[in-house]
Amino acid sequence: MSRFSAEELRGVYRAVLTRRDVRAFRSDPVAQPTLARLLLAAHHGPSVGFMQPWNFIVITDLALKREIHAMVAREKELAAADFSGPRREVYDRLKLEGILEAPVNLCVTCDPERFGPGVIGRHTIRETDVFSVCCAVQNLWLAARAEGLGVGWVSILRNDLLRALLKIPEPVFPVAYLCIGYPERFASRPELEEIGWAPRVDLKELIFANGWGRRDGVEALAEAAGAEDLLR
Amino acid sequence: MSRFSAEELRGVYRAVLTRRDVRAFRSDPVAQPTLARLLLAAHHGPSVGFMQPWNFIVITDLALKREIHAMVAREKELAAADFSGPRREVYDRLKLEGILEAPVNLCVTCDPERFGPGVIGRHTIRETDVFSVCCAVQNLWLAARAEGLGVGWVSILRNDLLRALLKIPEPVFPVAYLCIGYPERFASRPELEEIGWAPRVDLKELIFANGWGRRDGVEALAEAAGAEDLLR
Repeated sequence: MSRFSAEELRGVYRAVLTRRDVRAFRSDPVAQPTLARLLLAAHHGPSVGFMQPWNFIVITDLALKREIHAMVAREKELAAADFSGPRREVYDRLKLEGILEAPVNLCVTCDPERFGPGVIGRHTIRETDVFSVCCAVQNLWLAARAEGLGVGWVSILRNDLLRALLKIPEPVFPVAYLCIGYPERFASRPELEEIGWAPRVDLKELIFANGWGRRDGVEALAEAAGAEDLLR
Repeated sequence: MSRFSAEELRGVYRAVLTRRDVRAFRSDPVAQPTLARLLLAAHHGPSVGFMQPWNFIVITDLALKREIHAMVAREKELAAADFSGPRREVYDRLKLEGILEAPVNLCVTCDPERFGPGVIGRHTIRETDVFSVCCAVQNLWLAARAEGLGVGWVSILRNDLLRALLKIPEPVFPVAYLCIGYPERFASRPELEEIGWAPRVDLKELIFANGWGRRDGVEALAEAAGAEDLLR
């Protein structure tokens, strides 16, 4: 297969750099062929030993969404105890999910026994099945961005309750709960960065060479790349 | 920001659909600015509560690569006991990593305490830090594909030994060990599919609606998308 054109390459970096965790959605429906492309992208995620441990539960039923939403609202309140003072005030105002507005919700699950027990590459690190599911989710997230669709990963929830609501049988378990729809906007920066909750870490500080804490030989690396250049 | 052009969109789907787990590399070096773009892509992965829990240890030192390679070779042999008969013969012939040939190896780690202990969205599911690191890896993998670079995730290894070799301090831990370089080729299908080890699961079978096992309303979904159409 031939090289990527400059525009194809820019498409990949645009998706990567302008993807956002979206919590505010417009009500416009997501066309079935578009949603199908997102699921195809997820299904082409890498998986340990090609076990493809994922399933996709598309949730559009309003009564079901309301139950999940109520569960998440309870958990958001319980988690509020993690914060105090001004941070608590900011936390209380944050919109953490768009379950009811997003036309499509999606639960991505992991079946740890698919094609098992012998799975190539899973002998020492059993959690590679979950790692695979996460990579599949990221495929979907980037494809969505390129399609103009927003995705929000809702992680303030209890998987035991989600399992019961979606009738997910053992040993399968939920990994990701996603809200999908056309976003109110794609913010230019992550919301938690925008509001000053946490800064973007300087990439330079995160790169080491040949061992933790060593920087000889990689100083140039982090200086070289600028997101702005890639979006031009 | 404006919509993605048709070519930018095709770039994203090309990266997603033609990405491969690469184990055979050419010796051509990876230019520093190119590697820097891959790390920038990883650093723009989604992360729970914007905690950005990752670090990147670039490994180019040959003596270190040899030690890691020897460890992986031992683990590959130990894992062979998972297979017997003709599958064992196939397993023994499989090349599972390109640690020595790939000009760059990369260990991506997770710091579970970054910006902690209170991290938004991590109250109920602590492993969301690792999920974030996996999404970052997938960003890097797709950017690499678009740059014409291959990536192979080596998961037959022992994280305790890798931690010792790379001097990774507690509580940080390794999540992914990647080989990066220009590939011998990008196979048209995953190798384990090509050799008949495991089939690509039919996407139709993986999609449910509003609960496990229910298919009313999603039959059309899986029919709609064809990888071929997206690569045209």
